[in-house]
Amino acid sequence: MTITVIDAAALENLALGATVLGTGGGGDPYIGKLMAQEAIQRHGAVRLIDLADLPRTGLVLPVAMMGAPTVLVEKIPNGRELERVVRAVESHLGQPVVALMSAEAGGINSTIPVVAAAELRLPLLDADGMGRAFPEIPMCSMNLAGVSATPMAIVDEKGNLVLLETIDNQWTERLSRTATVAMGGSSIIALYPMTTDEVRRAVIPGTLRRAIEIGRAIRGSLAGGNPIDALLRVTGGAILFRGKVVDVLRRTEGGFVRGTATLEGLDADQGSVLRLEFQNENLVAIKDGTPVAMVPDLITVLDSETYTPITTEGIAYGQRVAVLGMPCAPIWRSARGLAVAGPRYFGYPFDYVPIEEAAQHALPARD
Amino acid sequence: MTITVIDAAALENLALGATVLGTGGGGDPYIGKLMAQEAIQRHGAVRLIDLADLPRTGLVLPVAMMGAPTVLVEKIPNGRELERVVRAVESHLGQPVVALMSAEAGGINSTIPVVAAAELRLPLLDADGMGRAFPEIPMCSMNLAGVSATPMAIVDEKGNLVLLETIDNQWTERLSRTATVAMGGSSIIALYPMTTDEVRRAVIPGTLRRAIEIGRAIRGSLAGGNPIDALLRVTGGAILFRGKVVDVLRRTEGGFVRGTATLEGLDADQGSVLRLEFQNENLVAIKDGTPVAMVPDLITVLDSETYTPITTEGIAYGQRVAVLGMPCAPIWRSARGLAVAGPRYFGYPFDYVPIEEAAQHALPARD
Repeated sequence: MTITVIDAAALENLALGATVLGTGGGGDPYIGKLMAQEAIQRHGAVRLIDLADLPRTGLVLPVAMMGAPTVLVEKIPNGRELERVVRAVESHLGQPVVALMSAEAGGINSTIPVVAAAELRLPLLDADGMGRAFPEIPMCSMNLAGVSATPMAIVDEKGNLVLLETIDNQWTERLSRTATVAMGGSSIIALYPMTTDEVRRAVIPGTLRRAIEIGRAIRGSLAGGNPIDALLRVTGGAILFRGKVVDVLRRTEGGFVRGTATLEGLDADQGSVLRLEFQNENLVAIKDGTPVAMVPDLITVLDSETYTPITTEGIAYGQRVAVLGMPCAPIWRSARGLAVAGPRYFGYPFDYVPIEEAAQHALPARD
Repeated sequence: MTITVIDAAALENLALGATVLGTGGGGDPYIGKLMAQEAIQRHGAVRLIDLADLPRTGLVLPVAMMGAPTVLVEKIPNGRELERVVRAVESHLGQPVVALMSAEAGGINSTIPVVAAAELRLPLLDADGMGRAFPEIPMCSMNLAGVSATPMAIVDEKGNLVLLETIDNQWTERLSRTATVAMGGSSIIALYPMTTDEVRRAVIPGTLRRAIEIGRAIRGSLAGGNPIDALLRVTGGAILFRGKVVDVLRRTEGGFVRGTATLEGLDADQGSVLRLEFQNENLVAIKDGTPVAMVPDLITVLDSETYTPITTEGIAYGQRVAVLGMPCAPIWRSARGLAVAGPRYFGYPFDYVPIEEAAQHALPARD
């Protein structure tokens, strides 16, 4: 059965599955879900459309929250910002928006577009720009396809609006990040406006239904069965580590949350140590000194008992967790993909090794 | 003879006189003069108009450079930015600009509007928002009159554009300052767009002709006569101190140049010390521990031999100077004027004392 609307039930699965794909980033899933629940209740379910359903003319516009997830938790949008950013880009370009889109998968950034679509009675395109979450604006398929992130609109909950027109997407990142920091650390944004022609060659299709499927797989096996196995079947991933969080270093700076979590092994990983480094999203997992998963592949931390994904602002001492690695969308494994989102971009002194290979180092002598 | 155009000759006087009014800020006068000379040579002289000459409809738009004067010296605009900021505000508001204006008096910020007016073949209104230079956007008569600084356009020499719509002018200051810093420390801006109705009650008229008159008074007595006496006759000011610069502390931070210059007295001021504190502009002059002039009154440093005004980025060890104090435009002495530009706003622990009174402490037992 193909899902064609996001209603309250689909939303539950979407929020959960997108948080798995969010690899620790993309904002708190709980707040985002509450906002979308309320919007759906008030305005009705949101129509989920495919690339083939798009009209010939008009704009597709991704909307998102920008900033450090630690701040998003405390600085809830009031809802009017979404209409404002969309209208600002529409009127700047003099073209109507015919569909909204997620910029990335992730707790709040998968549900914010649902809120906007419900409020503005616009369909939501089943696609995103990452197939996961990433911390910076150029790290998306639209950038790889040569689409400009601007005109980009940025608003805060106080009512300030910033409109950018930049010479490249690195300048968009720089100017929007400083504006977001000046606005208090988080903002609502609309960026990468695309014609319906452009969108076909510039996005990763199917991310929302994929997230819904992941959410359904986990929730479907909570009563009995093994939620982690179900998740790994859908995503083609592997368990990297089972352990307990024994230390977290986290600082919110420059509009990001950066830090490191240290985990001590349990069960088959007894005696091992995993270091997890993050910048909004989990970047690398290093087991006993060896990288066992790295960007752009997905690294997600799940609570061992509730199977809830743990975001980088939520990871805390004492949590018992399973760390999962999952392969990224194929576009990220191209030379251009690795140049904007590979380990060297983030300052690591090693080349990308795909999770299928790197994770071999992670597997304890289980079987 | 009333001046009705700014040609090459008027420009010489304007650049010099506006730098006197610039109180150390407003950017390097030499670069601004060269730019305006070239623009006048290429496009013809600029028509200088009065409030009474404005048409009934259309916008009056102040244009300026923003940022630390220390940076402006090294980061010369290419000229296309001016057209871009003006057009950005025009098209955002959907109304034509019928006259340009200076936001403040000061070296580059009196000549940048001349460049823009020549290039865009628009008249220049004989007015500004300060009657001097000030470091922050809300410090102007337009803000006191309740005019919004936004829509404001900000561009850099690389081609990036930022458009702001803010809830108040303090937010405009904050967001435009961080954008300017991110752009490398200086930018070209257009802000406080006004209808021709609004402009009548929101600006300080006559500043450009006043600057031209000051420049003419100084240059007219360079051959013989006393340039400082001539300047003081036009401005109603007084000599605060004669001395030699013995120490300068200057740092460029947060889009400003801040610092302190220490002067040892010469001639009648032998044995005295003057501390001059600045944030882009000179803020206070403290002689032997007593404030003898303070914002919003004007404090200008002149080279004792060439009678050239010395800007806060140009003041240096060994210079022999005369420090002059001049009364500010009356609007600044109102309670609202002092609230946005008085000594307490800048963090000083004392109330405003008008220069006519404060400078009594400065006068050595000369006569």
